[in-house]
Amino acid sequence: MQRIKAKKLTLGIVGGGPKSWIGHVHRISSRFDDQYEIMAGVFSRNAKFSKKFGKSLGISPDRCYSNYKEMADRESKRKDCIKVVAIMTPPSSHQTISEKFIDKNIHIISDKPFAGNLEQAKKLYKKIKSNKKIKYALTHNYSAYPMVREAKKLVEKGKIGKVEYINVEYVQDWSSGKNLTTRNSKKILKWKIDNKIVGASAVLNEIGSHAYHMAIYISGLKAKSIFADIKQISNKIKMDNNAQVMINFNNGAKGMFWTNVMARGGVYGLRIRIFGSKGSLEWIQNDPNYLKFNPSRGAVRLLERGFFNTNFSKNFSRLKFGHPEGYLDAFANIYREFATSLKNKSKKRYFFPNEDEGLETAKFIDACKLSSKKKKWVKI
Amino acid sequence: MQRIKAKKLTLGIVGGGPKSWIGHVHRISSRFDDQYEIMAGVFSRNAKFSKKFGKSLGISPDRCYSNYKEMADRESKRKDCIKVVAIMTPPSSHQTISEKFIDKNIHIISDKPFAGNLEQAKKLYKKIKSNKKIKYALTHNYSAYPMVREAKKLVEKGKIGKVEYINVEYVQDWSSGKNLTTRNSKKILKWKIDNKIVGASAVLNEIGSHAYHMAIYISGLKAKSIFADIKQISNKIKMDNNAQVMINFNNGAKGMFWTNVMARGGVYGLRIRIFGSKGSLEWIQNDPNYLKFNPSRGAVRLLERGFFNTNFSKNFSRLKFGHPEGYLDAFANIYREFATSLKNKSKKRYFFPNEDEGLETAKFIDACKLSSKKKKWVKI
Amino acid sequence: MQRIKAKKLTLGIVGGGPKSWIGHVHRISSRFDDQYEIMAGVFSRNAKFSKKFGKSLGISPDRCYSNYKEMADRESKRKDCIKVVAIMTPPSSHQTISEKFIDKNIHIISDKPFAGNLEQAKKLYKKIKSNKKIKYALTHNYSAYPMVREAKKLVEKGKIGKVEYINVEYVQDWSSGKNLTTRNSKKILKWKIDNKIVGASAVLNEIGSHAYHMAIYISGLKAKSIFADIKQISNKIKMDNNAQVMINFNNGAKGMFWTNVMARGGVYGLRIRIFGSKGSLEWIQNDPNYLKFNPSRGAVRLLERGFFNTNFSKNFSRLKFGHPEGYLDAFANIYREFATSLKNKSKKRYFFPNEDEGLETAKFIDACKLSSKKKKWVKI
Amino acid sequence: MQRIKAKKLTLGIVGGGPKSWIGHVHRISSRFDDQYEIMAGVFSRNAKFSKKFGKSLGISPDRCYSNYKEMADRESKRKDCIKVVAIMTPPSSHQTISEKFIDKNIHIISDKPFAGNLEQAKKLYKKIKSNKKIKYALTHNYSAYPMVREAKKLVEKGKIGKVEYINVEYVQDWSSGKNLTTRNSKKILKWKIDNKIVGASAVLNEIGSHAYHMAIYISGLKAKSIFADIKQISNKIKMDNNAQVMINFNNGAKGMFWTNVMARGGVYGLRIRIFGSKGSLEWIQNDPNYLKFNPSRGAVRLLERGFFNTNFSKNFSRLKFGHPEGYLDAFANIYREFATSLKNKSKKRYFFPNEDEGLETAKFIDACKLSSKKKKWVKI
Repeated sequence: MQRIKAKKLTLGIVGGGPKSWIGHVHRISSRFDDQYEIMAGVFSRNAKFSKKFGKSLGISPDRCYSNYKEMADRESKRKDCIKVVAIMTPPSSHQTISEKFIDKNIHIISDKPFAGNLEQAKKLYKKIKSNKKIKYALTHNYSAYPMVREAKKLVEKGKIGKVEYINVEYVQDWSSGKNLTTRNSKKILKWKIDNKIVGASAVLNEIGSHAYHMAIYISGLKAKSIFADIKQISNKIKMDNNAQVMINFNNGAKGMFWTNVMARGGVYGLRIRIFGSKGSLEWIQNDPNYLKFNPSRGAVRLLERGFFNTNFSKNFSRLKFGHPEGYLDAFANIYREFATSLKNKSKKRYFFPNEDEGLETAKFIDACKLSSKKKKWVKI
Repeated sequence: MQRIKAKKLTLGIVGGGPKSWIGHVHRISSRFDDQYEIMAGVFSRNAKFSKKFGKSLGISPDRCYSNYKEMADRESKRKDCIKVVAIMTPPSSHQTISEKFIDKNIHIISDKPFAGNLEQAKKLYKKIKSNKKIKYALTHNYSAYPMVREAKKLVEKGKIGKVEYINVEYVQDWSSGKNLTTRNSKKILKWKIDNKIVGASAVLNEIGSHAYHMAIYISGLKAKSIFADIKQISNKIKMDNNAQVMINFNNGAKGMFWTNVMARGGVYGLRIRIFGSKGSLEWIQNDPNYLKFNPSRGAVRLLERGFFNTNFSKNFSRLKFGHPEGYLDAFANIYREFATSLKNKSKKRYFFPNEDEGLETAKFIDACKLSSKKKKWVKI
Repeated sequence: MQRIKAKKLTLGIVGGGPKSWIGHVHRISSRFDDQYEIMAGVFSRNAKFSKKFGKSLGISPDRCYSNYKEMADRESKRKDCIKVVAIMTPPSSHQTISEKFIDKNIHIISDKPFAGNLEQAKKLYKKIKSNKKIKYALTHNYSAYPMVREAKKLVEKGKIGKVEYINVEYVQDWSSGKNLTTRNSKKILKWKIDNKIVGASAVLNEIGSHAYHMAIYISGLKAKSIFADIKQISNKIKMDNNAQVMINFNNGAKGMFWTNVMARGGVYGLRIRIFGSKGSLEWIQNDPNYLKFNPSRGAVRLLERGFFNTNFSKNFSRLKFGHPEGYLDAFANIYREFATSLKNKSKKRYFFPNEDEGLETAKFIDACKLSSKKKKWVKI
Repeated sequence: MQRIKAKKLTLGIVGGGPKSWIGHVHRISSRFDDQYEIMAGVFSRNAKFSKKFGKSLGISPDRCYSNYKEMADRESKRKDCIKVVAIMTPPSSHQTISEKFIDKNIHIISDKPFAGNLEQAKKLYKKIKSNKKIKYALTHNYSAYPMVREAKKLVEKGKIGKVEYINVEYVQDWSSGKNLTTRNSKKILKWKIDNKIVGASAVLNEIGSHAYHMAIYISGLKAKSIFADIKQISNKIKMDNNAQVMINFNNGAKGMFWTNVMARGGVYGLRIRIFGSKGSLEWIQNDPNYLKFNPSRGAVRLLERGFFNTNFSKNFSRLKFGHPEGYLDAFANIYREFATSLKNKSKKRYFFPNEDEGLETAKFIDACKLSSKKKKWVKI
């Protein structure tokens, strides 16, 4: 058996088999800062496959399981039971799987969205709040980019004054790359477009949840009422592939939200702009090490991660300015900060996304579906 | 008296006095290609002031008038009557002034928007169509940037397939620069925010009309139904300062439209993205010599004005690639092409905006006001 | 005969016939601000052609000449003799033509470079200085971009401290566009590559002179010694097509200079970076409305023409921030400011390039040729 | 003792203690793809400190050494001797340390530059070539960015024709951030500016070696002769802080090279442009997921990692297009590919930098020093 360094947390994984892209991302993220050791996992419903893949990850065969219940039950009986479980299964399963591990006092890092629909989200939220022993992190990973957190800080400090308008979009092209061209990709895609698996709305659960999360994470606001229009605009994928939403925020600000997964031409962009009474901010994932800060009465500032005036970002950064950080560095920030929160008893403030933001996002998506159907503004 | 070169067109001007920014723009544009000679004008209701300013432009005192009626009446009786009148008065006056000159068979270059409201727009449209002797151009000047016209051509040629989604925005910061800080600027601004002067909706007439025009100009589509939300979001200017609109286009495409004149931080951006079944296009006014063309199955192309594969743009361009053209070069394209159309009897196709697009834009704005009030989707 | 408005300056033109690109640019620039009226010109050695083209520009046939001597002699005898002559002939002819007009007390706007070689440059310089009645402007037009002048001002104000390093480049692709593909373009090109016409070094006179001018214009420095390497690197054009130079400036700063006219792929870029002890500046012609200012100890500032903190640029600008200005707007600044300087007797400081910078650039080019030949550092 | 998964390589580390930035980078890179397990190390000359830090990394105390000789000797006697050693000590020590491990048949991943000076480089090169049992990788990490390798492939395929010109620069600002402000940073900096430690030339060994490597890596060329000028241009750091070099490449191409570590304003840029007879390429580290490909006769292509037409880059990439990769992802590519090369007996071609490029770079730096001193072109 592997000897674990005192400082390492034992980690179990549910989901993320050999063909899963996000599984790969979670595992790299868990290794990034040497804070976790993967000790157990469910990688397939087929026990043999699960063991085979687990073995390739260095996991003991007796800790490779074929379903999450077995894993939770058996691990919880071990002396060296995993401390944390990372869940990266389809959205509709998040609630039940999480609840099982909560019952066993195992901390959770869950992939987004929080749950398959609002009903599940409410139950899960209640469950998490009911067990004071466990901590919960939700991998809305874009919020962990250092310059996104710098933006959050600037808003908190009042640098752009009262927030008056938010424009956020997450636009992808699932028709490009391998997504629609190979058989395998069609199988993977199916995963994303079957409502029973992906939950409420494909485009909103998969991508839109990130965009809305960014808006509330940075601004500290939440939607009070919305008007949505969800539609299949391209006939290449039989699913909701476009959603546009007008938002009234709880402080009186307005906003627009747009998500599309069939934006042709390899377009791939998460972008947020927040306008306040004293200035505005802009961040784009394609250029993540920079944050544009436009004060009302002064020259535009191109803030760079790790450079002067971006001190807050340095807390969530590993490299010096000039050396680009990317998607994985940001994703790993959630793993790293979650580890710190578990080892550290102090009531320090943490910045990883959690169940509160998860529930809020589920409410938003639910309201969008209702609004789009009724063609009316809907309160949240 | 000035001798006019055979090829020059005689031009009269209504509006655009010494403090007017757009007056300055029109006059430079008329001189750009040496196709017009300014021979008459109304620059103030005060006859003395009008003469004084006219004189500074080289106009004979007897052709400096104090109101448009006098100008139309007296010019039309001269042998050397102006051939073209350029109108740059507030929107609400466009209809009546234009009609007067149409009655005198004088061609019109009018500043946007087409008219103050839909009722005026319909009347003006009818009037224009009733006189086959005159031609009419509307200075939706952004559509005259060479790369915007290249975009229109690419859509027509089917390079992006069937248009599926349009995202257009025109965002400004009227609080920056001089707009709100000097007395003079407040006076100028008042001009823009009094509905009796500016017409239907300040933000939509002033700025939004450009954005919608861009969408229909490039795509060749028009809105079939819309859902709008018009609001004052900043309390610094007492007017509609933000409008957001969801659009269903007549070919089934969807779209989003956003305009804001209180986007703090010196933000100033006109941006359009058009997504089709085979690729997408993006153009941004801040970088007007480039057009991003993203084919679905190939590398992104950064098309540059005047370079290979942008042959169409060369028709509307004066400089070689590498030498930036700007706002004035584009504005002057409307003047130049209008001159060509008047001298040339052939049925060649012209690309300057006209009354058809003017009426369409007025319908859009009218529907937006109704939708925002009723909080419902409205058909156009 | 045309009546000239009191405020307009009468302009004669030498060179810039119908096929000339730069002729077109000069004429638009002279019209831009309505400060000049073209009244005379030499557009061809063939009197008939010259008259024909002159007529199309609205010039009286009796003032269309077939050589510059005739023009200078006959104009100078007229009561309404031109006040200013604009010279846009090949470099080697600049000296003699300019001298002739200086003798007639006619002010000069000359296209760059100052002269065909250093010998000519020295003579011309002496001649200009000898006649206190005339003023001389040299169209190193890039220095007239508002944000280039803002950069000059920032350096003067000490915002970047002592200048320590300058990196400047002007890179073009003459193989692209029409330059090498049509017969006509080959003819035009010939013009540029025959040393008897273009002067000392093709690449340095045509393009390099601009780049070096930018360096000394913004920094206020000049080269003290240089090491150069001039070479034909592409065999498509039989001329010096690449020149690279190391520079020691007179304040101890160092620098690098690069110019290339066979940089394939439609590359077309004039770019300058100036590093000082307190910060740095960067300006790129492809994005001319912005200037990057990087203070040593603070966030990067993206200065925009016409916005806060760029007040100096507003003196050389016609449009509000957000509306792009381009090449022609900058070129016209030289014409506009020259007109102001002629009308205004005050000793105000002007910013158009003049004979001092012209001579300096000729010295630089001469030293480069010598250094490249001797493969040694050469003092200037 | 830790049980090692069959597929993991055992790794020892020399250098990179708790305050070392590059140590941190190497360790993350070794964990990225789960191919290595750190089992031994020298982290300080003080045995106690070395053990303490080693322990924090999970290394057995008996395998934490206080000098590389002890480590090489004792490890080589163990059955479970490390397979690979990663060396990240100052340049002047690279040769002797590497030689010791080569003698023990331990594979080497060495930080750049190859050696402290040319003499050392030649000896080390010979030593490496003398032992067929070991493999050697040099972490010129920028060459491991996927789009840099795509660029290399495009050149090889002849997409830009014959290479005619290379412009490469690596410019940093060591005065920004913490580098010069804290005592600790001064201590770290001292490390970099003492020639006995850093080797031949501070700026060239530290930074310039990367820039030259990029040029030869992508183009497949090498310098035949050079002219260099190395100087201290800022008096804030007592060292060579600027080096500019003209290069004649072995195929007749020319080039310019510039490196500066006192480029104020947080400037931090590695940029390379390669011009060929058929087109050109540009890559900038600040925007590493894109490569600009400008064909001579076609639209500019903005190639993106992971998208169409960038298939080669996918071999060195972990994320889909749209998700930014950064510095660490690239650095880890060297570790990953080195592991593959050790496990795989086939004669597949590998792309990690090696001793050949190391020696070439040492020759270049040596020639630069000589040229700068003699002020003459120097053959390599």
